[in-house]
Amino acid sequence: MSRVVQKFGGSSLADLACMRRAAQLVAQRWHQGEQVAVVVSAMGERTDHLLALASEASKSHAAASAETDALLATGEQESAALMALCLQNIGLKARSFAGWQIPVETCGPHGNARVQQIATTTLLETLRQKAVAVCTGFQGTMGGGKRIATLGRGGSDTSAVLLAAALEADLCEIFTDVEGVYTTDPRIVTTARKIDTIDYEEMLEMAALGARVLETRAASAAMRFRVPLLIRSTFSDNPGTSVFATDKSMEQRSVTALAYSDKDAKIALVGLDNTPGIAGKIFAQLALNNISVDMIVQGTTQDEKKAHITFTVAKADKERACSALEEIRSEAPFQELRSDDKVIKISLIGAGMNSYAGVASRMFRTLADKGINIQIIATSEIKISVLIAADYLELAMRSLHAVFELQKDPSSPSKI
Amino acid sequence: MSRVVQKFGGSSLADLACMRRAAQLVAQRWHQGEQVAVVVSAMGERTDHLLALASEASKSHAAASAETDALLATGEQESAALMALCLQNIGLKARSFAGWQIPVETCGPHGNARVQQIATTTLLETLRQKAVAVCTGFQGTMGGGKRIATLGRGGSDTSAVLLAAALEADLCEIFTDVEGVYTTDPRIVTTARKIDTIDYEEMLEMAALGARVLETRAASAAMRFRVPLLIRSTFSDNPGTSVFATDKSMEQRSVTALAYSDKDAKIALVGLDNTPGIAGKIFAQLALNNISVDMIVQGTTQDEKKAHITFTVAKADKERACSALEEIRSEAPFQELRSDDKVIKISLIGAGMNSYAGVASRMFRTLADKGINIQIIATSEIKISVLIAADYLELAMRSLHAVFELQKDPSSPSKI
Repeated sequence: MSRVVQKFGGSSLADLACMRRAAQLVAQRWHQGEQVAVVVSAMGERTDHLLALASEASKSHAAASAETDALLATGEQESAALMALCLQNIGLKARSFAGWQIPVETCGPHGNARVQQIATTTLLETLRQKAVAVCTGFQGTMGGGKRIATLGRGGSDTSAVLLAAALEADLCEIFTDVEGVYTTDPRIVTTARKIDTIDYEEMLEMAALGARVLETRAASAAMRFRVPLLIRSTFSDNPGTSVFATDKSMEQRSVTALAYSDKDAKIALVGLDNTPGIAGKIFAQLALNNISVDMIVQGTTQDEKKAHITFTVAKADKERACSALEEIRSEAPFQELRSDDKVIKISLIGAGMNSYAGVASRMFRTLADKGINIQIIATSEIKISVLIAADYLELAMRSLHAVFELQKDPSSPSKI
Repeated sequence: MSRVVQKFGGSSLADLACMRRAAQLVAQRWHQGEQVAVVVSAMGERTDHLLALASEASKSHAAASAETDALLATGEQESAALMALCLQNIGLKARSFAGWQIPVETCGPHGNARVQQIATTTLLETLRQKAVAVCTGFQGTMGGGKRIATLGRGGSDTSAVLLAAALEADLCEIFTDVEGVYTTDPRIVTTARKIDTIDYEEMLEMAALGARVLETRAASAAMRFRVPLLIRSTFSDNPGTSVFATDKSMEQRSVTALAYSDKDAKIALVGLDNTPGIAGKIFAQLALNNISVDMIVQGTTQDEKKAHITFTVAKADKERACSALEEIRSEAPFQELRSDDKVIKISLIGAGMNSYAGVASRMFRTLADKGINIQIIATSEIKISVLIAADYLELAMRSLHAVFELQKDPSSPSKI
């Protein structure tokens, strides 16, 4: 007998009609003789609604507080109990579990807690009795089981993956409102193709770059605990995307996907004194202000007297970053500070592809051919990212998707 | 320092504006140096909404089930967390407690659980730290703390009274949407007067007869544990109605209030064989079918050969009662079964007043003067009830209210 964890997000549980459809997907597995644990998010927009209520009740106490967590946790409790009733209604045994009933122990701040341990005794006993265990995602306890904590937005994906790891499940199915993971955003590139299989590292990069199908923390947990994932739609029979460990270094390397992010802003410091430690001062000041930096380029003038540093930060942090740098202008003098948030980051993703210089040069040539200027380049083990002017988003995406033949089935891999 | 439990019902917490007003009432007590524990119901119509969802999810599993209890419990959790945030917003320390966090141990069926024990250690510690303990009404745990149970509709009143008893509070304030307890329904008798003080027995009778201000179970618990109650409005400064133990037998007896119930139906069995045990058979059959009987009259024909029995049951049980009696017609033969649900029960309430024959005769004469026929009479230690045709409701109420001078201040008690 195999054991599966099925996770349903808010859009898959928007109303009772959706919930009944989800219950049918649970029943399908159960009737095949599998043990099924279900992880649910809050229904539809319920979490946003509750968060708005908390802010209205007390703007200054709503953020990351014990009471906001207690409030938000009701959303998943509601959908877990209703899902259990829907399952009972179609003849299955089912029992709902709030975070404190499992229990899921967490630590760390309210509103963004980290899972420490998931107890499995009661859940396994429930599964052995051929009942479906319907677990609330996104929540656990802290303070010795006394308080309710939540894992932060999108935490239900993480709950599902960690529960699958704890239960040693054979599969964790993530049900969502799209068919799976795509080579790129189908709204921008109409030839975008659903990917049948992808490995953990690629999935993690795509999640980090903002692919909506899976939270970064969940992708990271799946990779760490080697939990096989199947990402698929609640609303169709499409087989979805399988995420598991592959050893692509032994195979033909390929570019798997093309991602973009419009969440970045560029900051350039021009005419810095080219003295040792100047970059250290600048990035220390940003770190001190809790501002994360992503892409970085550093260079000097030809006479090496002046340096310039360009980097990206989250758009939301741009103003704070500029102020923080002005504050230390006396210690780290610069001639000019420029910032630009009309930029976009485009990334080619594929395990092991960094060892093929051809991918990068082909990417740069493709963009140059279209007259698109590359502002910053960053590479990692499995991705090449470029920062370009936001205006060129669609053109760059379509061109790269076509050149790397991502619309083609991977059984005939793209030439690189 | 004194300790107070304040209970807010759904109408007092209909939205955040109402909740803020309730928070101000908590703050008033707290700023007077009192320790305050708050008991909250679900916001507005939330419980009804959740119940409807449960029925929609599974009609056959929604009633009195573990999952429906888990679902309903979210309503109070939501308002407790929001109330805590509202209190924090006006500068008070506050912490919400779900039933399992207190914990409140219950037994007995889901959907109608009975409180067995309320732990006070954590609550008292919270109060000692000058924080307001915001407790969910209506819920507790069962099965060794593992499952969520609810106390049945209106259970929050009971939660508040029992919490006040457990905490040895000096007062339990029940906030509602009316000014207090009235001599009778002001919608029917415009001269109805708010009662300043009432004793437990009278309050219990009025609650049992359907006065909306306090649940019968809560009135009964207050009487048993001698918890002083103050029933008042969230929306005005009217001092409300105090409920406490009095020794009216030592004082001038008085009729305190006039109540009515339109929830009863009359059933008459005519032409029964007048044999010993015939009434026993009839009421055993009704009990077997879980039908409660209220008022009963039994009589015989002049020759004592035939008997007749008239009684009342809840309107909702009328059809079932009639079927149950037809079933045993062979064992307990009768000539005719008549039923009538166009009846109304009117009750005069006043501690110790049954020892004054004058009250009953004056009540009957008043009704006779208006041409109102009395169908059944029932008396208890503190009330006299009559069943009359429903058409006469307003006329009977107004006449009796005037005759017993209930509109007058009790410092000049009605003559009896």
